Order: sequence, then structure tokens, then C-alpha cells
Amino acid sequence: MRIGIIGSGIIGQLLGSKLVSLGHDVILGTRDPNDLHSKKGAPGDPAPSLAEWLQEGGKMAQVATFSEAAAHGEILINATSGMVSLQALALAGSENLAGKILMDTSNALDFSRGGSPVCLATDQEGGSVGVRIQQAFPDTKVVKALNTTGSQIIVNPLLLADGDHTVLLCGNDPGAKEIVSELLRSFGWRDIFDLGDITAAHGMEMMTALWLRSWQQNGYRPCNWKLVR
Amino acid sequence: MRIGIIGSGIIGQLLGSKLVSLGHDVILGTRDPNDLHSKKGAPGDPAPSLAEWLQEGGKMAQVATFSEAAAHGEILINATSGMVSLQALALAGSENLAGKILMDTSNALDFSRGGSPVCLATDQEGGSVGVRIQQAFPDTKVVKALNTTGSQIIVNPLLLADGDHTVLLCGNDPGAKEIVSELLRSFGWRDIFDLGDITAAHGMEMMTALWLRSWQQNGYRPCNWKLVR
Repeated sequence: MRIGIIGSGIIGQLLGSKLVSLGHDVILGTRDPNDLHSKKGAPGDPAPSLAEWLQEGGKMAQVATFSEAAAHGEILINATSGMVSLQALALAGSENLAGKILMDTSNALDFSRGGSPVCLATDQEGGSVGVRIQQAFPDTKVVKALNTTGSQIIVNPLLLADGDHTVLLCGNDPGAKEIVSELLRSFGWRDIFDLGDITAAHGMEMMTALWLRSWQQNGYRPCNWKLVR
Repeated sequence: MRIGIIGSGIIGQLLGSKLVSLGHDVILGTRDPNDLHSKKGAPGDPAPSLAEWLQEGGKMAQVATFSEAAAHGEILINATSGMVSLQALALAGSENLAGKILMDTSNALDFSRGGSPVCLATDQEGGSVGVRIQQAFPDTKVVKALNTTGSQIIVNPLLLADGDHTVLLCGNDPGAKEIVSELLRSFGWRDIFDLGDITAAHGMEMMTALWLRSWQQNGYRPCNWKLVR
């Protein structure tokens, strides 16, 4: 499939590399595709430069603008920080998003108050980032997924406990959730739990503060939550 | 042990019954102990009246005021809604809390905006309810626990997957956390994960919005999260 990724930090790069390895035709969208040597992503993002990425996991992919990536993809992925997602998706262009599935992996974490991160999703009238994206792009099928765990395992869930842990998703379109689920299964995810419509993005984004703390207390080793039911 | 429970809704009653069954000497504190027939707890709380509770699980326990329950306990439990916990604990009296362990099970959920509940803990400068209690009662050893899962299993974790799921706790005092852990083990909890100091209460309280949605999507059958690591 043709996949367009909006955002070139660690999550965009990891997803891009994985999708390339699975045979997909990937364009990674970045704010300034002529600048391949700066650090991308939010402050502290551990991703290598795009020049390095294009030598490694991304060598079968292309780097382009947000709008070029969005125009290319049959399926789109938002891999930007939730703090800037609406702005980045506006640059990608609503005409390039219309009618398509957008997997939203974003979190809006504010570390500015010190201590535990505040999940901004809960501070704003508009609700979660996922809901605000769906509202801003009503012709796009937004599916929230992969925001509740760490970059170490999102594309390699089998690295932890042989994959015996859960990935969550939510969204308004059942068909879009099924296609995203297929993509997740191709990564190795076995336990996919559907939280219902896009309003569940609220809880998924709030989860991130706990995930970060759990990961820290686990010595920054891979960990994830399993919904036992 | 002598245990004082602050709050007489479903969580206070379930914990009270369980602790009685384990042989502890329990006083359940309520706002007006002369009124045993009204519904207690937050709006929608499914707990029976205290008169009924005293006939059933609480028949070896006593009902008294917040301050009498707090004075009685060697270990205290905050089982009030997080929206009113600071007020309830002020009524319990800082002199009755000083030097003691207080297990804080509260969540501050605001359903007033409709849709997904907003966890107020993240809206306020003071941070989580757990942190605000610790700040208000610096001589008390606050241990946050049992707020991240449902009343169906908090006192009977073995009812779900033979107990193969996680209970979280946090707090500033390692000794207090060990004593709370012993209490949790006596309930049947096998996997107790220590998130560190009380500031982790932030993530634990934010988790609640996700837990509620997961439970709803699981058809309101018992479920809980396991930290796979």
C-alpha cells in the first residue's frame, strides 16, 4: 500500500522503517524536506537525522513535505506531537486527507510544569487530540492507535512477552478500524482492543502519563499494558 | 489491626467488609452516622444503605463519624470521591491522621461536560488528589492504591484471571508502601507494582478515564490492566 506519514520524529521514522520492511510504498512527510541533517520531532526526540534514516531503515522510502506525503498515501499516519498535530495536518491539506484513513499516534504532553507530564488533551474544551483532529477533518476516518506505549515495541510487539499485551484503538468508522487492525497485526500485534468511537481517545491520551511513569520505574526496559478480561 | 475508613460509598463498604472478613477491627466513617438509610457516596454510587451494610458485610464493624474512624485506625483509608477528599479528611482531623498510613483510593472524575469523564486531577495547579492530600497532611504517609480498577475486583482480585493482573501504588514512604502491600496481598493481589513517590498519583488518576472506557467496552464484565514487563 501507499502510506503517507506526517511527522519525522522517532515514531514516524520507526513506523516508516517497519512499513518499508513490510513492502509498503512510504513517503515520510517533514516540515522542511531540504533540511535532512537537523534533529526532527519534539524536544528530546531520540530519532537520528533524516539523512541517517534514509541510509538505514528508510532507504526504500522518500522524504517529502507534509502535503506530498499526504497526497501519496492511501493510508495516512499522524506521527507528530499532539501539541502541533492540528497545525501539521493543516499543512498536509484537508484535500489530501479527505476520504482517507488517518491513524493518529499522537500525544499532547506538557512537561513545562515540571514533575509528571500533564496531558493537555484534558485541559481543553475540545477534548483529546484525536477528537479535535476528527472535528477538523470530518471527511477523514481518524483511528487513534499506538499512542499508549513506547517506541521500543510499537513496531515490534513480539519483543515483549511474545506479544502477550494489548494495543488499543478507537475511531468512528468500523471499516477503518479493521484496516488499521490488519496493519497492526502485520507488525505482530495479537491483542487489539477496540475502545469504541473516537471519544475514547480521551482516555487513551490520559494513559500516557501513567505509561511514562511505569516505563521509568521499570528501568526504561520495554513494558506495556495488557487488558486482562 | 484497627482500621479507619473515611467514606461510606461502595469502595468504603467493600473494603470494610473485606477487612472485617480478614479479622481487622474496622470503623467506617461517614458524614452523618445517625443517617443509616440514605444512599451514600457520589451520585450513582451503587452501594446499599449503611443499615443494610451493617446487616451484611459490615456486621462486625462500626459506623461512626470521619473523625472517630480516623482516631480509631492504626491504618486509614480514604474511600471518598476525590472531588471531596480534602474536605472529608479535614473533617477527620489532622491530629487523627498524623503519623499514620493513609491509603488513598480516590479519583476526581468530572462527568459534567458529558461524554468521557474528565479527570480533574490534571486541571488543577496542585496536581493529583494524592499529591494534594500529602501536601495538606505532611505528617501522614499517603499511599495511593486501588484507584485504577473497578470495585468488582479490588477486594477479590483472584476473581479475574486467577489474579494475573497488576495493582499499582505510589507514595513517599517505603515502609508505608510495604505495609499497604501486605494488606493488598492479604486481599489476593499478587502483582504489586511500585510507581515511586506520590507524584505518580497523577498518572494513576489519569488512568481512570481509560479504565472506565475499557470496562464499558468489555460489557461491564471484570477487567483490569496488567503491566507486562
